[in-house]
Amino acid sequence: MELKKYVALVEDYPKKGIKFRDITPLMGDGKAFKFATEEIIKFCKEKNAELIVGPEARGFIFGCPVSYGLGIGFAPVRKPGKLPREVISYDYELEYGTNTLCMHKDSIQPNQRVIIVDDLLATGGTVEATIHLIEKQGGIVVGLAFLIELEDLNGREKIGNYPIFTLMKY
Amino acid sequence: MELKKYVALVEDYPKKGIKFRDITPLMGDGKAFKFATEEIIKFCKEKNAELIVGPEARGFIFGCPVSYGLGIGFAPVRKPGKLPREVISYDYELEYGTNTLCMHKDSIQPNQRVIIVDDLLATGGTVEATIHLIEKQGGIVVGLAFLIELEDLNGREKIGNYPIFTLMKY
Repeated sequence: MELKKYVALVEDYPKKGIKFRDITPLMGDGKAFKFATEEIIKFCKEKNAELIVGPEARGFIFGCPVSYGLGIGFAPVRKPGKLPREVISYDYELEYGTNTLCMHKDSIQPNQRVIIVDDLLATGGTVEATIHLIEKQGGIVVGLAFLIELEDLNGREKIGNYPIFTLMKY
Repeated sequence: MELKKYVALVEDYPKKGIKFRDITPLMGDGKAFKFATEEIIKFCKEKNAELIVGPEARGFIFGCPVSYGLGIGFAPVRKPGKLPREVISYDYELEYGTNTLCMHKDSIQPNQRVIIVDDLLATGGTVEATIHLIEKQGGIVVGLAFLIELEDLNGREKIGNYPIFTLMKY
């Protein structure tokens, strides 16, 4: 299935000079959404994933259906103040300033095989922070799955040596 | 399946006197997550849903798996500035101040049968705004599905006469 025809190109969003890849048409098409989700499910099965982790909010869009399809749990990564119980948090640098991501402290079991699912691999900052949060809790990151990879931004270099699955590259 | 045992009670969150129902343990348990999703899927099948709509971020957690399970599309409702193309928006009042929700203008087809999925029915403000956004685009809201309903907050009264499915009541 040619998934790229369901991705809209939006010029100059969120700021001038950026070519934004909008996946909402893909989500809106039942067949395309199902196909993309099942491709990620296949990857997760090969890696014997036991838990899916996804960063808010767009990591929930594919991460939760993948969990459901595999019959395994889903643990959310959220911004500060969004999780009600005790969290572990990780700060990382952005182009301007820093960002913080959190997980509930009891969300990963030691040695649990975890796959991170998100819509986009860009500079890799979010996924690097997510890997840190999982490994700090004793989880094993057995793979990373993305709908789209923006190759020019070299996210793979930042992330290091993890199996990466991407459905579309630009 | 007794789903309530997977919901954590957090006292005084997000502020003093509030009993917060935390669904992350339910999401983290593969069997409970699958069971809850499939109950919502059954309701959507009975209503012949053609599209699922969910408000960010927690509406994606069950809305997206339900879309995937049914093989139908998902349209997100988001806060201002998060959707890259032309949107319609709706303002509604909160206890203090107002809130705005948006959808892409092309996200609903005229007469499309739509079900709104979210984790929580509380005062009903978010779902009322979402109904408005769908109906303004010519969609038909054939049902509303929630994981949890907080009955004391009388959300049903605010919403009006739509079929409502909830998995747990407090």
